[in-house]
Amino acid sequence: MREVTTAQAAQMLREADDILILTHQYPDGDTLGCAFAMCRGLLSMGKRARVVCSDPIPQKYSYLYHDMKECAFEPGFILAVDVADAPLLGSGLSEYADRVDLCIDHHHSNTKYAANLLLKEYAAAAEVVFEVLLELDVTIDEDIAAAIYTGISTDTGCFKYANTTAQSHAIAAQMMRVGIDTYPINRLMFEIKSRARFEIERLALESVEYYFDGICAVMYITKQMLQKSKALESDLDGLTPIPRQIDGVQIGVTLREKSDGAWKISVRTGVEFNASSICGRLGGGGHMRAAGCTVTGTAREACDKILKEIAAEREDERNSVH
Amino acid sequence: MREVTTAQAAQMLREADDILILTHQYPDGDTLGCAFAMCRGLLSMGKRARVVCSDPIPQKYSYLYHDMKECAFEPGFILAVDVADAPLLGSGLSEYADRVDLCIDHHHSNTKYAANLLLKEYAAAAEVVFEVLLELDVTIDEDIAAAIYTGISTDTGCFKYANTTAQSHAIAAQMMRVGIDTYPINRLMFEIKSRARFEIERLALESVEYYFDGICAVMYITKQMLQKSKALESDLDGLTPIPRQIDGVQIGVTLREKSDGAWKISVRTGVEFNASSICGRLGGGGHMRAAGCTVTGTAREACDKILKEIAAEREDERNSVH
Ligand SMILES: [Mn+2]
Ligand SMILES: [Mn+2]
Repeated sequence: MREVTTAQAAQMLREADDILILTHQYPDGDTLGCAFAMCRGLLSMGKRARVVCSDPIPQKYSYLYHDMKECAFEPGFILAVDVADAPLLGSGLSEYADRVDLCIDHHHSNTKYAANLLLKEYAAAAEVVFEVLLELDVTIDEDIAAAIYTGISTDTGCFKYANTTAQSHAIAAQMMRVGIDTYPINRLMFEIKSRARFEIERLALESVEYYFDGICAVMYITKQMLQKSKALESDLDGLTPIPRQIDGVQIGVTLREKSDGAWKISVRTGVEFNASSICGRLGGGGHMRAAGCTVTGTAREACDKILKEIAAEREDERNSVH
Repeated sequence: MREVTTAQAAQMLREADDILILTHQYPDGDTLGCAFAMCRGLLSMGKRARVVCSDPIPQKYSYLYHDMKECAFEPGFILAVDVADAPLLGSGLSEYADRVDLCIDHHHSNTKYAANLLLKEYAAAAEVVFEVLLELDVTIDEDIAAAIYTGISTDTGCFKYANTTAQSHAIAAQMMRVGIDTYPINRLMFEIKSRARFEIERLALESVEYYFDGICAVMYITKQMLQKSKALESDLDGLTPIPRQIDGVQIGVTLREKSDGAWKISVRTGVEFNASSICGRLGGGGHMRAAGCTVTGTAREACDKILKEIAAEREDERNSVH
């Protein structure tokens, strides 16, 4: 499908009305921040617009739409934001999968399933949305600023991750000048943990074991831990990076027991090792620094399987150096 | 002592040479970022300058000065950065306590012990230093940019805390445009935990207890945990906020066993309770949202003492509402 410029995307929206805004399933701060920023901007232009999501929107994002009324209409234009591929709309929005008029996104993995405003070097789709809103001459009020900020802050891990750019900070500065209070947003996004998340985290931390003189740390998330903590899938976000946060750990491994008893292994590495190569030895794959594979057996057996491949990888590294 | 403007501070530095730059004891990213940014800027002007600190500089900050040579001279001008009061220079620098020619700072608690460039609304002293360097026409190279960024990022908790301003983000954007890679800095500052810190954290998490239907969480840091984890004082930073990060917890309590067997209690509250008022009941004090007190007894007795006062505080709150 064709690529469009920011100006062209703005023109398409200017000509549209009754705009249905689609977010991706398991919504995050970027897709929701984009959606409500666009929705508020379009409403301010006198258009009808509403946001839909295949999944329930987690309570912590309610400040994004606290004051908004439901807007009923037959969709005349369909906009997808931060949605890299049509199936990611989720089952609840599958009826729109072939009918998206415009997609505003930043994912490298975008499949170009619609007319696309795709800016891959942007840290958040909210940065793209911000430029479209400026092009539309929308006044950035506090609600829009909070939504844009939310998208940028969540996709950059509060400006910590390597995807953060000067532009991310520059837009955050502009959003703060509008008058928003960013700490309450960041507290909701990054500080507060559900009780179940807190419980699963402490059980997982207790399970950490060190191997190879401490350069490898292994953490378990078992079915028993999930039951004990009452943790849901959404409570497990951000657990796999933990082993690699321990000083001296070059290979962080998380072993997650699936409902069928198999183990999903996540491997995170520093510059010293190739996670994708380690997981490839067990039929998995991924990126240089983050990869995964699946194995069967008891916890001990699963751990031994990945340790054996890490040992082999270390051996190969050593041989290739000499 | 007199207040000076940014232009006046720059003029003082322009006229000075053999500049000794003092940081505060237990150095953090802001005092070190300020010091090495200033030092590099002054060196680039053809002056002699060096940084001194009463305490050893933690290894994680070594990127700030990795390439710098020791510069020997008899001090002709003494500059303190991010040092709110002369005693905070520490015992190793006490000989300079009465001889500081210029202090560049942002602390509300600054005691004006020297000619002062004090900008209290700035999130980091590094933001003040940045303005002084611009006034001095110093070219902001990557090393200076990394130092300024470090100061801002550490003092704002990576742009998360309530002290973050639009200016903090705007300067971060400028530093990134110089070409620095911020993720490695933030990983060092915010992600990597010493093994001892990791151990003390997991022991502390295991100890968490809930009271009053989960609106209060209590966490312990005992002498035994300190021994077992081999944690140092510097490993305990950032533990006391943990109980208040659990969803639904309005009063987070940390009970820390001191070497003499007494318990140092830290209380963190949300908007619902006054931490200072709770701790005041046990002879302590502090701020509305973060306060402390000290009690004696066993762990159980110490916990019961603070719970009793929390119950009394809840009772008083209830009565004052009706
Ligand atoms: Mn995104
Ligand atoms: Mn500071």
